[in-house]
Amino acid sequence: MRIVLDAMGGDYAPAAVVDGGVQAAREFGVEVVLAGRREAIEPELAKHDTAGLQLPIVHASQVIEMDEHPALVAKAKRDSSMVVGMQLVRQGEADAFVTMGNSGGALAVALFHLGRLKGIKRPALSSVFPTVKGPAFLIDLGANADCKPEYLLQFAVMGSVYAERVLGIANPRVGLVSNGEEEGKGNSLVQETTPLLKASGLNFVGNVEGKDVPAGLADVIVTDGFTGNVIVKISEGVAAMILEVLEREIKARPVAMAGALLAKPAFRAVKRALDYSEYGGAALLGVNGIVIVGHGRSNAKAVKSALRVAKVAIESKVLDAIRSGVQAAGGAAEEEGN
Amino acid sequence: MRIVLDAMGGDYAPAAVVDGGVQAAREFGVEVVLAGRREAIEPELAKHDTAGLQLPIVHASQVIEMDEHPALVAKAKRDSSMVVGMQLVRQGEADAFVTMGNSGGALAVALFHLGRLKGIKRPALSSVFPTVKGPAFLIDLGANADCKPEYLLQFAVMGSVYAERVLGIANPRVGLVSNGEEEGKGNSLVQETTPLLKASGLNFVGNVEGKDVPAGLADVIVTDGFTGNVIVKISEGVAAMILEVLEREIKARPVAMAGALLAKPAFRAVKRALDYSEYGGAALLGVNGIVIVGHGRSNAKAVKSALRVAKVAIESKVLDAIRSGVQAAGGAAEEEGN
Repeated sequence: MRIVLDAMGGDYAPAAVVDGGVQAAREFGVEVVLAGRREAIEPELAKHDTAGLQLPIVHASQVIEMDEHPALVAKAKRDSSMVVGMQLVRQGEADAFVTMGNSGGALAVALFHLGRLKGIKRPALSSVFPTVKGPAFLIDLGANADCKPEYLLQFAVMGSVYAERVLGIANPRVGLVSNGEEEGKGNSLVQETTPLLKASGLNFVGNVEGKDVPAGLADVIVTDGFTGNVIVKISEGVAAMILEVLEREIKARPVAMAGALLAKPAFRAVKRALDYSEYGGAALLGVNGIVIVGHGRSNAKAVKSALRVAKVAIESKVLDAIRSGVQAAGGAAEEEGN
Repeated sequence: MRIVLDAMGGDYAPAAVVDGGVQAAREFGVEVVLAGRREAIEPELAKHDTAGLQLPIVHASQVIEMDEHPALVAKAKRDSSMVVGMQLVRQGEADAFVTMGNSGGALAVALFHLGRLKGIKRPALSSVFPTVKGPAFLIDLGANADCKPEYLLQFAVMGSVYAERVLGIANPRVGLVSNGEEEGKGNSLVQETTPLLKASGLNFVGNVEGKDVPAGLADVIVTDGFTGNVIVKISEGVAAMILEVLEREIKARPVAMAGALLAKPAFRAVKRALDYSEYGGAALLGVNGIVIVGHGRSNAKAVKSALRVAKVAIESKVLDAIRSGVQAAGGAAEEEGN
């Protein structure tokens, strides 16, 4: 098994990325191809004991920066670590691509250089999302701001397959984000998508309200990329707001401050429970290859975790499962008259 | 000044509602008309000292329940406290209507019995939203799941006028919710709305991401009713999740639990800061009358607070200001070629 790791992507690249790659090569017994500037990667590799590990470097002279415009970079930076790395996947020389870099850039590069899986209308960005009952899986996070019902149906199939095969959730419950659970609710996109999901053969549990998402009422949360992005960002914002206000109120009260010191391990545990970088990042589903996009702030442990996810995705043949799942759901939807 | 209060609406009606109404009549020196079942209201009134206060009862035999379908109740329950109360506003016999009841029901009744303000395409539900910098104002919260750019422009005008006149925010900063701040981002609705807002003469600060909303980057947050509903509900859900996980982690650690006891006043202050029922509820903007919808869980204090908001709205002539604001923005938009 050979996984390409974008050594140049992420806030702590290349040091933390190479570190995580070395750990993964050792612990998982996989070959990790490090894509990026040879002169930047070699000194990092030299810091580790890599005897007996498979850690070849594939040189790429360019880097796609975190703030670069996705549509522009895919074509312009042909010698970037992302393009070079995904080309290896395309040519069958590697089984998956993993990056901590610009997720929009990864999507654009994948669309341009890997293309779509057969039968997929729109690839989507997806990620685990923390809930009180453990991680759920949210799709689409922002790849497709405007969607059609058929896209959402395919997102549901892809998310369901991924949750089952890669996250290990048996018969995952699929929910469609709406403004109220009742069937009359929803914008026109939701109202047209609901019957498709009902006929899909998936474990569709119905429409879920915003508050149901963190409550863990569904394992796979389906929505358009605009709403999905707002969900992720507002959640980050609300969590940050609560912690900021809490800190302010605690600091204003000496007794409370003493108490907060005692409660600190509990606070740390909460931050950990809510931190999805722990879960190994996002997946780009629907492109013709396995592409895992970790959080930009990933440390070595998170990088290793993303490589583990890639390994599970390869072993569980997630691409084949998505292909046949989408075909089956498409057939069911057509019988429904759509 | 005469304000109609729906004595039957809300989880703690009629007791808490009548209590809040009596307090408001005394503190603000306004006449509070109690609409609802006379036999339910009279015993509640009898519990208070109402000497010298203006608290007439207008009998209405029906109640619109919290879980009733909005579209069905507006026509069917003609002798409900909502319909009877809004009719008083329509006939010019009262200056505003306040309810803690079913907000969708209030919207449906208002559309049917009050109608729209001249020039308004779609009335909207709006409410304050907690941020680290104090309350912001979010519009639309769910009245219009599918929107057009012209609707969002009018929401921006209505929200801006309301924030300035009723919430006392000078020259409020208006932000449009999007999936990223850059101008190329956004779904097609956002992309078509952005130029209208730029030409509107409002203090438009651009597109705001989900995380910018709780960070307080805008005073008036404009979005379609689907996204607005998701924002409010996901925020409630994330806040509940954080508190639940925190409680679980604290209870698992005896020392942390002792600490949490000491920090309790700070936690209470956080809950208060995040609780928008404190701010006096939501407003239904764009209908031909002042309609304030408090939170269903309102206690007497929150009811009084909603009545105070209604009083400020009446005094500041918010309806006239919305009418002329919308006219001005419509003219500007037409010059832009829209």
